[in-house]
Amino acid sequence: MKLIRYGEINQEKTGVVLNDQYYDTSAFGEDYNELFFETDGLARLKAFLDANQASLMPIPDGVRLSSPVARPSKIVCIGLNYADHAKETGAAIPPEPVVFMKSTTALAGPYDDIIIPKNSVKTDWEVELAVVIGKKASYVEEADAHHYIAGYALHNDVSEREFQIERGGTWDKGKGCDTFAPIGPFLATPDEIADVDNLRIWLTVNGESMQNGTTSNLIFKIPFLISYLSQFMTLLPGDVISTGTPAGVGLGFKPPIYLKAGDVVELGIDGLGTSKQTVKAYAAH
Amino acid sequence: MKLIRYGEINQEKTGVVLNDQYYDTSAFGEDYNELFFETDGLARLKAFLDANQASLMPIPDGVRLSSPVARPSKIVCIGLNYADHAKETGAAIPPEPVVFMKSTTALAGPYDDIIIPKNSVKTDWEVELAVVIGKKASYVEEADAHHYIAGYALHNDVSEREFQIERGGTWDKGKGCDTFAPIGPFLATPDEIADVDNLRIWLTVNGESMQNGTTSNLIFKIPFLISYLSQFMTLLPGDVISTGTPAGVGLGFKPPIYLKAGDVVELGIDGLGTSKQTVKAYAAH
Repeated sequence: MKLIRYGEINQEKTGVVLNDQYYDTSAFGEDYNELFFETDGLARLKAFLDANQASLMPIPDGVRLSSPVARPSKIVCIGLNYADHAKETGAAIPPEPVVFMKSTTALAGPYDDIIIPKNSVKTDWEVELAVVIGKKASYVEEADAHHYIAGYALHNDVSEREFQIERGGTWDKGKGCDTFAPIGPFLATPDEIADVDNLRIWLTVNGESMQNGTTSNLIFKIPFLISYLSQFMTLLPGDVISTGTPAGVGLGFKPPIYLKAGDVVELGIDGLGTSKQTVKAYAAH
Repeated sequence: MKLIRYGEINQEKTGVVLNDQYYDTSAFGEDYNELFFETDGLARLKAFLDANQASLMPIPDGVRLSSPVARPSKIVCIGLNYADHAKETGAAIPPEPVVFMKSTTALAGPYDDIIIPKNSVKTDWEVELAVVIGKKASYVEEADAHHYIAGYALHNDVSEREFQIERGGTWDKGKGCDTFAPIGPFLATPDEIADVDNLRIWLTVNGESMQNGTTSNLIFKIPFLISYLSQFMTLLPGDVISTGTPAGVGLGFKPPIYLKAGDVVELGIDGLGTSKQTVKAYAAH
């Protein structure tokens, strides 16, 4: 299954993708949130679709797409998890995963604007494969980790490099600004992805290729990451783990290139669709 | 007002403290969560108490106290915010706040056990003054910050020093283990605290004084912290900001002292009550 959420912010409805067409599943009666995943909602949704597929209503073109998962309890991210990206930032290959957290208020839809924060001069892009957790995970063995995966989604781990690196303390300061976590277009359940360790992952800015990698280059693979993180914190159903970005971020250029108002960022991962964000300056509202 | 939550985990009821006695406010009909704070719940609770105070039922002794606020969207913490603590850890006084995040799954009641994580050898204590946010805060001016405070609470920012410092990456890895954020006993609204910048803050382990400071030594004061954080992320109603710990953590001793099963940690802040946690080893369940 491929799950979507759509509609205005805080009034999202649910849907699915069938044969590249979006269909409404409001009649299913549940949001795709922690409770949904915790109570085996994916199996119930499948049963609902099997019973009601013929009567689902298509979603009109032009509707806003939201994150395919509702606001999770946490967005946990892995840093420097592609060797070429570690090299471009001047960092060593980490001996174990680098972990940081994104404020969940950063969550955005896949076509929402990226807002450059007030006082920001170094807003950057990072295409990433995100994993959504399907059930409560604490001290999970790597061999069992696949049981804890609800699905995968495309994520732009937007990052403010000055806030992240030059303002003291940990990276969290530059990762959680509003709009800094566009996720989607859809959540794909694992059966939709033949080999999650061999997907092309790419990003362009204004049509120019910036990132062009493959998930086969992940230093720490997804089952290891789930097991590893679950040693340090309990992962809840619906939680998002973002697995790191390949080379080609703005910080890696000499001199660095950062986003400015009017730029258009497009990104994609094989089998997980594409997303597109227009960059806007912050305006008080 | 002084707000409490009590009862078994995930079945908490609400209450208040009146003349040092706990009273049930279930009839008020709302949990103390994001929606409550967002919709001016404190004013509605006050009106409810004014109308119903005479008929409130006392809560029996021995009931479990929970965190006085429901699971927030985030727990944001400030590191090294007392000069004496920065010194004991060998760190410089930070030129601007050090920020990290605690997984919200760490939230615990003020008398719940602290569980030493599997594979942990350096579990440590940190008594802190926590601020609970009362309304959505983005780019708040320092002079306006007091309008965004719902109240204050006692917090033990339990920390695993090896996970935090020696395992690569940011501090988040050692801050978000289950039970690592006992908050309470109660949330005190600002009118209950005469001068939040002049409160004694202390912690003992097995009855021996370890931390004994005053909030007058906070390097970055609460209004500045709210303003500062709101430049990097939107703070939501119910979010918790923990303002840092004074000297006397286990890491600061030579040699360091860490918690072991059977230890009893007690802590308190003037006007915000006391809490007490017994340390237990992790046991699979």
